[in-house]
Amino acid sequence: MAEKLPTRKENYSGWYNELVVRADLAQHSATKGSMVIKPYGFSIWETMQRELDDKFKATGHVNAYFPLLIPKSFLSREADHIDGFAMECAVVTHHRLQKNPEGDGVIVDPSAKLEEEYVIRPTSETIIWNTFRDWIQSYRDLPLLVNQRANIVRWEMRTRLFLRTTEFLWQEGHTAHETKEEALDETLKILDIYADFSEKFLCVPVIKGIKPEHEKFPGAVDTYCIEALMQDGKGLQAGTSHFLGQKFAKAFDVTYLSRENKPEYVWASSWGVTTRLVGALIMAHSDDDGLILPPTVAPHQVVIVPLGNKPADRERVLTAADKIRQLLKEKGIRVKLDDDTNRRPGWKFAQYELQGVPVRVVIGPRDLDKGMLEIARRDTKEKSSIEIEGAENHVAKLLEEIQQNILQKALDFRAANTHQADNWEDFKSLIADTGVAVYAHW
Amino acid sequence: MAEKLPTRKENYSGWYNELVVRADLAQHSATKGSMVIKPYGFSIWETMQRELDDKFKATGHVNAYFPLLIPKSFLSREADHIDGFAMECAVVTHHRLQKNPEGDGVIVDPSAKLEEEYVIRPTSETIIWNTFRDWIQSYRDLPLLVNQRANIVRWEMRTRLFLRTTEFLWQEGHTAHETKEEALDETLKILDIYADFSEKFLCVPVIKGIKPEHEKFPGAVDTYCIEALMQDGKGLQAGTSHFLGQKFAKAFDVTYLSRENKPEYVWASSWGVTTRLVGALIMAHSDDDGLILPPTVAPHQVVIVPLGNKPADRERVLTAADKIRQLLKEKGIRVKLDDDTNRRPGWKFAQYELQGVPVRVVIGPRDLDKGMLEIARRDTKEKSSIEIEGAENHVAKLLEEIQQNILQKALDFRAANTHQADNWEDFKSLIADTGVAVYAHW
Repeated sequence: MAEKLPTRKENYSGWYNELVVRADLAQHSATKGSMVIKPYGFSIWETMQRELDDKFKATGHVNAYFPLLIPKSFLSREADHIDGFAMECAVVTHHRLQKNPEGDGVIVDPSAKLEEEYVIRPTSETIIWNTFRDWIQSYRDLPLLVNQRANIVRWEMRTRLFLRTTEFLWQEGHTAHETKEEALDETLKILDIYADFSEKFLCVPVIKGIKPEHEKFPGAVDTYCIEALMQDGKGLQAGTSHFLGQKFAKAFDVTYLSRENKPEYVWASSWGVTTRLVGALIMAHSDDDGLILPPTVAPHQVVIVPLGNKPADRERVLTAADKIRQLLKEKGIRVKLDDDTNRRPGWKFAQYELQGVPVRVVIGPRDLDKGMLEIARRDTKEKSSIEIEGAENHVAKLLEEIQQNILQKALDFRAANTHQADNWEDFKSLIADTGVAVYAHW
Repeated sequence: MAEKLPTRKENYSGWYNELVVRADLAQHSATKGSMVIKPYGFSIWETMQRELDDKFKATGHVNAYFPLLIPKSFLSREADHIDGFAMECAVVTHHRLQKNPEGDGVIVDPSAKLEEEYVIRPTSETIIWNTFRDWIQSYRDLPLLVNQRANIVRWEMRTRLFLRTTEFLWQEGHTAHETKEEALDETLKILDIYADFSEKFLCVPVIKGIKPEHEKFPGAVDTYCIEALMQDGKGLQAGTSHFLGQKFAKAFDVTYLSRENKPEYVWASSWGVTTRLVGALIMAHSDDDGLILPPTVAPHQVVIVPLGNKPADRERVLTAADKIRQLLKEKGIRVKLDDDTNRRPGWKFAQYELQGVPVRVVIGPRDLDKGMLEIARRDTKEKSSIEIEGAENHVAKLLEEIQQNILQKALDFRAANTHQADNWEDFKSLIADTGVAVYAHW
C-alpha cells in the first residue's frame, strides 16, 4: 500500500492534487495544461452529464452540435466578448504538416497557411448565434432551446486537475426568446436546475448569486452563478447562467417577425457546467483517507470482497458472493465483485476506501457458515454484520441512508460556516474573524 | 410546401444533399468543411451512440477522455502513421490573439508562438499509447479496453454533410492485450458488434471485409471494415477495426511484465464509427419523398396530428389525442403531438413524411365520433383506420413490423445486387455488367 495522503489540515491543496491522481480520477498529460480523464473519473462525469441531460430534455431542450473551430473574426463581433475570449486561446493557422526536408519528423507546411485563422471554441455563442440567424424567422420559431456537450479550450497558465485545465468538457445551453422576460426566466430556471442537481444529486448545497460587473461573462447583461462551499471554507464556482439580453442577436443580426409582424432582435440566455464539477464533488465530501462519493455518482456503489484462500472455501465463498452480486444488480445497483487473487484483502480495502466506494461487502468462510456477511460504509466507516438472507434489501436501504447522510453533513457544514451579513461593517468583521462564506446582498 | 426533392434516379447525389438539409438533419457552417448537426440529426446520432455505448460496456469496455491537442512530434513516432495523419490536419501554432493595433478586430499575437505546435487529433493512437505507458506495468493490467467519444479534425478538400466533413464525431476504441491472438480476437469481436449493430439497429446489412494494403489504416497490421450497400449500388465504408500488432507499443515504448516475468511489447487494436453512419442510414432506406427511418433511431417514432378547426371539435379531439399520446408514452414510445394551429394538416403530413417519422396517427372529429383514428406508415405508405380503444397496442406492434420490413427490404436489395465472384474473370464481367457490389476473396 502506498503512503498516506497529505491531510486536509496540513495541506489542503496538496491533499486534493494527490487524491485526484491516486484515486485514479485523472492525470496530467503530454499536452500542457490538459488532463487525461481516467475511466474512474470519466464514469463520474458521464453519470452527471446523463442526469443533467435528462433534466434539460424534460424541460424542452434539444441537443445539437456546432463546429469546434470558430473563424477568428467572429470573436470580435460582440464588443465585450473580445476582451474575454479573443485573448488566451488556441489558434489554428495552418492546415498541413510535411516531412522535415532537413531532418527527422514533421514541420508545419508554410504553404498551407489559412487565409483566416480559426480559434478553438473558448465558448460557442458566436458560432451558434451565427447559425441561429438561419433558424429564426418568426416568433413561431421561438423559443429555441438548444444544448451542446462539447470540449472547450482556454489557454490557462496555471492549471489544476478538473478545477482549471486548458481543455475541459462541458455542456453549454444557448436559448433564444421573444421577450426579455422569457429569456430572464430561462436564465433563472436553469440556475434552479443547477442548484437542485448540485444539492440532490451531488449532495453539494450551493448558494445562488449574481456576479459583480467585473466578473460577468463577457457579453452578458447579467451573470448568475451557483457557488459551493469547500471544506477549507472557500467558495467554488460550480455553474453559471447568463442573461445575454439582445447583445448577440445584434452582433449577428438575428431578428424575428413578432406577433405584430415587426422585426425585433431576439433575446438570449446561455449557461454551462464543466468537468470542474468533479473537482467540487471531490473537495466537498472527501476525507484524509480518500474520496467519499454519494451513491448517485459512484461508479461502483458496492464492492464485494471475498475472503478465504483454501480451494474448498474459495469456491463456496465465490458462489455466495456472486449470488449477492446478482441480487444487487437486479435491484439496479452498480456492483463490482473483486475476485482478483493477486491482491490481498487489506490492499483492496484501502484501495476502495481511497476510491470512495460507498459500501463494502465482505464475505468469508466463517461468516458464510453462520449465514452472515460484513458490511462497511465509507461515509461513517461503521461496520456491521448482517444476515446474507435479504442482504440486498439492507444494502439498497443503506445506500439511501448514505446519500442522505452525506448531504446532511454538507448542509450542516454550510450552516456552521456561513453567516448573514446585512451591512458592510458586519461583512468586513465576519470575513476578518472567520474567513468563511458570507451571504451578502449585492 | 417547398418543391419536391430531386429523384434518386435523376440525381442520386443531389437527392442526398438536399434531403439532409430539408429534413433538418444538418447544414453547412461558417467553418469551411464543418457541419452543424441540427437537433433532429443529432438525436439520431445520440441514439446510435447510446446503443453502441451499451454494447461496449456490456463487453467490458470503459470510457475515458484524452486531450484534443496532440504534440506535433507524436505524429512522427510511428513510421506509417506519419504519411496518413501528419499531413492534412489543423495545426495550432499560437495561444493568444490581440486587438489589431492598426485597425479593427483581432490578430494573432506574434509573441504567443508555441515552442512545439499541436495538431488537433486526426485520431488518438499516439496520445493514448503515450498514456498507456503509465497504465500498464504487468500482465495483470491487461487487457485494457478503453473507448472514447470525441471530435476529430482531418482537413478535407471535398466535403459532404455526414459522409465526409473536416470535423466529425466518432467513438474510438483503443485496447491493449498480452498476446497477438487476444488483440486479433478483440479486433474481430468489435467488427461483429459493428455489423450486428448496423443490421439490427440501423437495418443496414453490411459485408465484412479486410482492406487491401494501400487502404489500410496507417499504423495497422490489418484493417477490417464493414461496408454497406447504398441504393445506387455503391458500397459505403461504415466502420473499421484495426489490428495494430505491436507497432504503437514499440513507438511509445509500452511493455508489460509477462506471466514469465519478462518484459514484452503490448498488442493492440483500435476501432471506430463516425457520424458518417447517419449518412449511411439516410442513403440506405430513404425514398424520393424523404427520409425513411427505422423506429429504433427515429427521434419521433409516432406523430399525432389532430384535425378539426371548430372550437367545440378542437377541444375534444385534443383531449383524445393527448390520451393516446400518454398511452404511447407509457409504452416507452417516442411520440410527438403536433397541435400547432399555425400549420395546416397537409403541410404537417408532407413535413413528417420528409423527416421519416415511421407512424402518423390522425384523429379528427368524425373519426372520433366513430371511435376510430387513422394510421399511416411511412415505409409502405399504407393507411388504415383502427379503433381508438387499444390503438396503443396496435401502434407498438406496427413499429416492430416497420422495423422488420425496412430490414427485409434492405436484405432483399443486397441479395439482388450482390454477386459471388470466385475468380478474376467473373469479377471483371460482373463489374462490367452490373456495376454492383461483388463478394470477392482478397
